[in-house]
Amino acid sequence: MYIGRENKQNEEIGLSWSKKAVAEAEAVAAISCSGHGRAFLDGPISGGQPICECYDCYSGVDCSEFSPAGSCVVDVERMSYWYNDDTMMSTELEKYIRQLHSLVGNANTEGRYLVFGLGAIQLLSAAVYGLSSQNSSSPSTVVASAPFYQFFKYQSVLFNSNFEDANSWKSNNSSDDTDVIEFVTSPSNPGGEFKTPVLGGKTIYDQVYFWPHFTPVPAPSDQDVMIFSISKLTGHAGTRFGWALIKDKDVYDKVSTYIKVADLGISKDTQLRALKLLKVVLEDDGRPFFEFGYNTMRDRWERLTLVFAKSSRFSIQQRDPLHCNFFNETRLPSPAYAWVKCERDEDVDCGAVLEAGNIIGSSGSTFSDDDRYVRLNLMKSHDDFNLLMQRLNELVAHENSTHETM
Amino acid sequence: MYIGRENKQNEEIGLSWSKKAVAEAEAVAAISCSGHGRAFLDGPISGGQPICECYDCYSGVDCSEFSPAGSCVVDVERMSYWYNDDTMMSTELEKYIRQLHSLVGNANTEGRYLVFGLGAIQLLSAAVYGLSSQNSSSPSTVVASAPFYQFFKYQSVLFNSNFEDANSWKSNNSSDDTDVIEFVTSPSNPGGEFKTPVLGGKTIYDQVYFWPHFTPVPAPSDQDVMIFSISKLTGHAGTRFGWALIKDKDVYDKVSTYIKVADLGISKDTQLRALKLLKVVLEDDGRPFFEFGYNTMRDRWERLTLVFAKSSRFSIQQRDPLHCNFFNETRLPSPAYAWVKCERDEDVDCGAVLEAGNIIGSSGSTFSDDDRYVRLNLMKSHDDFNLLMQRLNELVAHENSTHETM
Repeated sequence: MYIGRENKQNEEIGLSWSKKAVAEAEAVAAISCSGHGRAFLDGPISGGQPICECYDCYSGVDCSEFSPAGSCVVDVERMSYWYNDDTMMSTELEKYIRQLHSLVGNANTEGRYLVFGLGAIQLLSAAVYGLSSQNSSSPSTVVASAPFYQFFKYQSVLFNSNFEDANSWKSNNSSDDTDVIEFVTSPSNPGGEFKTPVLGGKTIYDQVYFWPHFTPVPAPSDQDVMIFSISKLTGHAGTRFGWALIKDKDVYDKVSTYIKVADLGISKDTQLRALKLLKVVLEDDGRPFFEFGYNTMRDRWERLTLVFAKSSRFSIQQRDPLHCNFFNETRLPSPAYAWVKCERDEDVDCGAVLEAGNIIGSSGSTFSDDDRYVRLNLMKSHDDFNLLMQRLNELVAHENSTHETM
Repeated sequence: MYIGRENKQNEEIGLSWSKKAVAEAEAVAAISCSGHGRAFLDGPISGGQPICECYDCYSGVDCSEFSPAGSCVVDVERMSYWYNDDTMMSTELEKYIRQLHSLVGNANTEGRYLVFGLGAIQLLSAAVYGLSSQNSSSPSTVVASAPFYQFFKYQSVLFNSNFEDANSWKSNNSSDDTDVIEFVTSPSNPGGEFKTPVLGGKTIYDQVYFWPHFTPVPAPSDQDVMIFSISKLTGHAGTRFGWALIKDKDVYDKVSTYIKVADLGISKDTQLRALKLLKVVLEDDGRPFFEFGYNTMRDRWERLTLVFAKSSRFSIQQRDPLHCNFFNETRLPSPAYAWVKCERDEDVDCGAVLEAGNIIGSSGSTFSDDDRYVRLNLMKSHDDFNLLMQRLNELVAHENSTHETM
């Protein structure tokens, strides 16, 4: 179809960034399935385009072949909670996730089962259920070593497990107790360093920060239960999409059952959104995406390091260089958070000190650590980060001009 | 801008059904917030269009006013799990849900709190948590009267409550025990009739079928906890969106906390999708939508009634007329399911009988009832329903020509 220059201009005035997406959506909707099936954007592909998924007793490339006789049954049991292949998880999306890990080199997915959840958060409790022993009248014991992500504790209270600090538990209990479940966030929240278990028994690895924009990737993670999310990969925290890679079939069955019984699988809209996001992430082998993320975080850490170097009142976490397989260089971590410490004896409530300087962070006690620490989120917009730098510079300048408390 | 007929044709060749949606999306994205904020499709509206939601310390209609001094703080604690108004639930969507119930007249939302969940399913367990007494070391007791939706039982096993049949429990326990929680599905699953509690204490009403396409609407439901979902309203079961209307503030706080701790709120993509769906439902006061749904279900029931009238081997549930305030007429229910009974003594496994006739339904025992019953889903596509009718007609014709078992 010839579109003259004037026509093209008129057409372009209407749409810009959405053109590709909308053309794709209309093209898939226009695939003829003879009125006896549908093709979907996130459906199985053949010959480069989604195939028709036919209704019961219809078949053929365009669902035009009707076979009512013989063994063809009409299913009036199921509803649209399931994809056509009887799963609750998009096969296309699963494929992209495995491709992503292979490309980044941050997790071994070979022989691992995959379960989707409503964010990594939902998978934490699903994984506890998956690893718990069968005796359901005793609540599970769940531990983590401080500082740890506060939801480990909050969820345990809600779902009736017993939560304890990992080091305390270790001091007070026999190492023969194999039923206790440990959460390990690695790279850690809030500090960003690689972390190992205290107990070494049943362990759930929360690896949501294990991406090149936050940390060197020295080797693929190879744990029995590894949890990731889109929130810390692309920033789409509101989309609520996470996934667990699970080695053991029985554990996988239990985790999968948990998600099914808790909410009949996660939203198909969410899965489609995640698929689209991953397609963008994986363009050009992920280089543009991860380079942008890493450069941004690295620049932010350079600016932070400069300002904290001028301070004796405040310090941030030490960062040690490691080799990164993804960028093929030795580099410093560029963690998602600054874990700020107030160094003066009198500054026991560091959150209050920063708040007086118009910075709202998360106090150390949120992570079951000392309130001398505050966690600052470095993943926000340029405006927010620039404002943070401005406030930090003001605080440090004030510190250097006077020693009295603000 | 003048668009000549030829241009319009060229433009129209590209897009059809998506034009309105994509124009809306691009228009919102083009709203200028000076690079210091964003407007969203599901954001708060002023003067008929979404307003700019500004980053910290920026303000004004277009976020161009920067106020870094004084009390303006930079928030480096939160992430995008929240909308700009600090909630996890879309205010626009909440508004539309209340409007929907007011229009249909199926629930009293006055003074009720609203909580969103990942389908009604997630809200069932959230509501049990909300109504449970504080003593968390004792599992809650949850009951329902057979036949009941199987997930009531499945969830209890998973979340460590004790589940029992309501009538058995009543026979064996004192009515002074006010801690037991009862699920009532009304209109019921599978039969479609209005149902009342056995115990009359703490009750969670699963009202997902309480829409004009399934049942007369004699009066708005006015219960303490009422759960609805998009699945049975529009058929978008895969979207996974449900809501609970809750009277008591303490119960609401607990249910809200459960959703927050279980998964940091539900997907924003899901909420946007639900908003768009409700906008369509509510067009022209809901008439086109609900008339289409009701006419479809009524026609299906007329066809079903005809075929079962010819059968002595199979029967379906009785339906009694009631006045409907929405359609302002007395009408029969047109339930989501046929609850088929095998009447012959030897047909103890009705599912097997139907399966031999190439119909897959859900056996009665799924709902803790007799396997003489089978539930058939009447909410499927026209193709599926036509195929069901064909199979039923074959079964009944065979029954009338010979009395031997197939």
